[in-house]
Amino acid sequence: VACGFHAGDPSIMRRTCATAVELGVRIGAHVGYRDLAGFGRRRLDVEPPLLHDETLYQLGGLDACARAEGGAVSYVKPHGALYHRCSTDADAADAVVGALRAFGAGLAVVGAPGSALLRRADAAGLDAIPEGFADRAYSPDGALVARSEHGAVLDPDAAVAQAVAIASTGSATAAGGTAVAVAVRTLCVHGDTAGAVALARRVREALEQAGVAVAPFA
Amino acid sequence: VACGFHAGDPSIMRRTCATAVELGVRIGAHVGYRDLAGFGRRRLDVEPPLLHDETLYQLGGLDACARAEGGAVSYVKPHGALYHRCSTDADAADAVVGALRAFGAGLAVVGAPGSALLRRADAAGLDAIPEGFADRAYSPDGALVARSEHGAVLDPDAAVAQAVAIASTGSATAAGGTAVAVAVRTLCVHGDTAGAVALARRVREALEQAGVAVAPFA
Amino acid sequence: VACGFHAGDPSIMRRTCATAVELGVRIGAHVGYRDLAGFGRRRLDVEPPLLHDETLYQLGGLDACARAEGGAVSYVKPHGALYHRCSTDADAADAVVGALRAFGAGLAVVGAPGSALLRRADAAGLDAIPEGFADRAYSPDGALVARSEHGAVLDPDAAVAQAVAIASTGSATAAGGTAVAVAVRTLCVHGDTAGAVALARRVREALEQAGVAVAPFA
Amino acid sequence: VACGFHAGDPSIMRRTCATAVELGVRIGAHVGYRDLAGFGRRRLDVEPPLLHDETLYQLGGLDACARAEGGAVSYVKPHGALYHRCSTDADAADAVVGALRAFGAGLAVVGAPGSALLRRADAAGLDAIPEGFADRAYSPDGALVARSEHGAVLDPDAAVAQAVAIASTGSATAAGGTAVAVAVRTLCVHGDTAGAVALARRVREALEQAGVAVAPFA
Repeated sequence: VACGFHAGDPSIMRRTCATAVELGVRIGAHVGYRDLAGFGRRRLDVEPPLLHDETLYQLGGLDACARAEGGAVSYVKPHGALYHRCSTDADAADAVVGALRAFGAGLAVVGAPGSALLRRADAAGLDAIPEGFADRAYSPDGALVARSEHGAVLDPDAAVAQAVAIASTGSATAAGGTAVAVAVRTLCVHGDTAGAVALARRVREALEQAGVAVAPFA
Repeated sequence: VACGFHAGDPSIMRRTCATAVELGVRIGAHVGYRDLAGFGRRRLDVEPPLLHDETLYQLGGLDACARAEGGAVSYVKPHGALYHRCSTDADAADAVVGALRAFGAGLAVVGAPGSALLRRADAAGLDAIPEGFADRAYSPDGALVARSEHGAVLDPDAAVAQAVAIASTGSATAAGGTAVAVAVRTLCVHGDTAGAVALARRVREALEQAGVAVAPFA
Repeated sequence: VACGFHAGDPSIMRRTCATAVELGVRIGAHVGYRDLAGFGRRRLDVEPPLLHDETLYQLGGLDACARAEGGAVSYVKPHGALYHRCSTDADAADAVVGALRAFGAGLAVVGAPGSALLRRADAAGLDAIPEGFADRAYSPDGALVARSEHGAVLDPDAAVAQAVAIASTGSATAAGGTAVAVAVRTLCVHGDTAGAVALARRVREALEQAGVAVAPFA
Repeated sequence: VACGFHAGDPSIMRRTCATAVELGVRIGAHVGYRDLAGFGRRRLDVEPPLLHDETLYQLGGLDACARAEGGAVSYVKPHGALYHRCSTDADAADAVVGALRAFGAGLAVVGAPGSALLRRADAAGLDAIPEGFADRAYSPDGALVARSEHGAVLDPDAAVAQAVAIASTGSATAAGGTAVAVAVRTLCVHGDTAGAVALARRVREALEQAGVAVAPFA
């Protein structure tokens, strides 16, 4: 169980940290591109040295908000377009991991299974957490179906079923019907889709009914 | 001796921190309004609760950059329009001081002599450092001559002379010729005026020749 | 009847212009401060010369969107904090009116009754349109009750009643119960309050039932 | 001879337009990504529909500034990363050209020789102007040497010589020594390199001495 953030309104960050501390939820820094108009979901060619320093700055800013509320950042997960870039771009992954090491708080790192990010995080001695998605369809090759394609976002029933399948069996049913391995330690439910809170509740209940223990990874 | 920053490019922040650490110069967070187009020098009515959280976020972001280079933020000085607001607006001063207390690192606070900011910082047990200006003309009432008025910014010779007068005698010659008390522990030379580096060197040499010891306040 | 805009996403602007053209609704440029985080509702001390050029730029940008859809900007109304500033600040009002004259399309100007903006617009030969508010409470002196005070925003029933009172009798019942003159040619229903569309429909129906003809001012 | 702009400070735009009108220089809209921190030189994946509307908005905004000074925008040239994208991305080129057609003022379009942008502009009946670079080195394949590579930006002597060679012979000497065809109708000297004004003067003088007539293309 985790909650995360991206660069933006520091009051929303601090208040969300307060709620997380109250509920015992881990706090993660969802670092991303400074592209508020695109909500960090558009590719932006930030050079690795600046990416390193942006990560450091956003991480430090959120951590200050968390500490003011008696918590602390315990993991980092790149947001949006930066998440996808860090799956394959080793220089970007190095920049993010380098910033985490410079920050020096033993943070966990969340990313796609098999991604450059997790390989670099692991090599740097950080806890590398592979992530699956409850509410997004998988391709037969294990990648996510692109948001621009039909059926990319699952309906609530399918999302609940997929979450249980991934957590119980380590595999999901890809678009087309074949099974695809999804070996992960955390599951994402996107917070900006309609009904996200209700879906998260249903996913949690279904996991518990399936005998899957839900616990913080960090 | 101090160097400071405002919200902006985190690579400039980190590299300047690296230089400061190398030279043994103290690092300060010059927190300001998110108004890059106006360089933080235009009044912007940010409500105190958001001001509190902005201060926390900007402070945490810079401190992460400083710590990555082996340093740390040791003081806070509001930037531009926020500096002037904190001279008289007790709610704004409380917001900034509250953020520093929440950050919890025993930071010093730099502001105008007699300002709301320094009174609140002092009441909160923080080290309150009154500041004078080498390169700005004073009015007979002790305030700065507004930038929009003729003669607001002193030429280098006058700035050097004013710095020595303030440091040696605790007073400056105001516009009009009367003496005005300027009881301060630090002197500012603005970094964005032409010849700032040369002026800072001249000020330092003149202070040393006048027998004034130059040392970090924090 | 009018629809308006502020600086932001040009696709939202163009699409809204398309809808306005389709429905025969007048298009207005709601020029404002470049402070997206504060939605233009926070005071920002933009100097009059820059305000002039910002007005020109925002007006030209929206007009290009409107013309691409077969329409055109037919009036200007300052947005948020700039609206209130233009009520009393003659230099700001001059800057806005000067930009409209430089744009040269015979635009109407919407502002508060008795405002500096309308006086300057009138003096410049532009059509000056005084505006009332359906959904905001009036003070006995004819000003709006500040948003920070209790009861500043009227509930739908009160807003409908106030709209009809203003349109039929030229006066509203101020907070406290006294009558206050509100001599206006247009009524505002804020688009970002919950239920705005339903409220606008109710206001229009009530006006028509009261025998008030609703027609474009520009 | 032309001068151009990108999204940013409207006062700089208006004042530059005033100078251009005074000197009889053509005004161009250098539309670009809303990425001021990266000066529009970083790839940003703006979708074509938004690109269309951004182009329209930026074009309209600048044209209003130009008309306030008695001029008008007479050409459009995408800026930075958008320029390079429009060389090969037909959807982006269509978006920009579509916005120019919607604007409806018979604007000329400046782009790389053989680019998607110029093909689409030509097909749409707009005047398509191929552009060469005085101050950037060419590769043997006719592309520019990337800014990240050594020798990408020519020194002033080499830039002057290349400008004359391109204008007189239609070819330049590429990195490596081979000749490369550069068939263009306008030459760019970047305004943000040190000594740009002096270089532009030298280029103009050298062109005139070589018997090349310098005249507006639009």
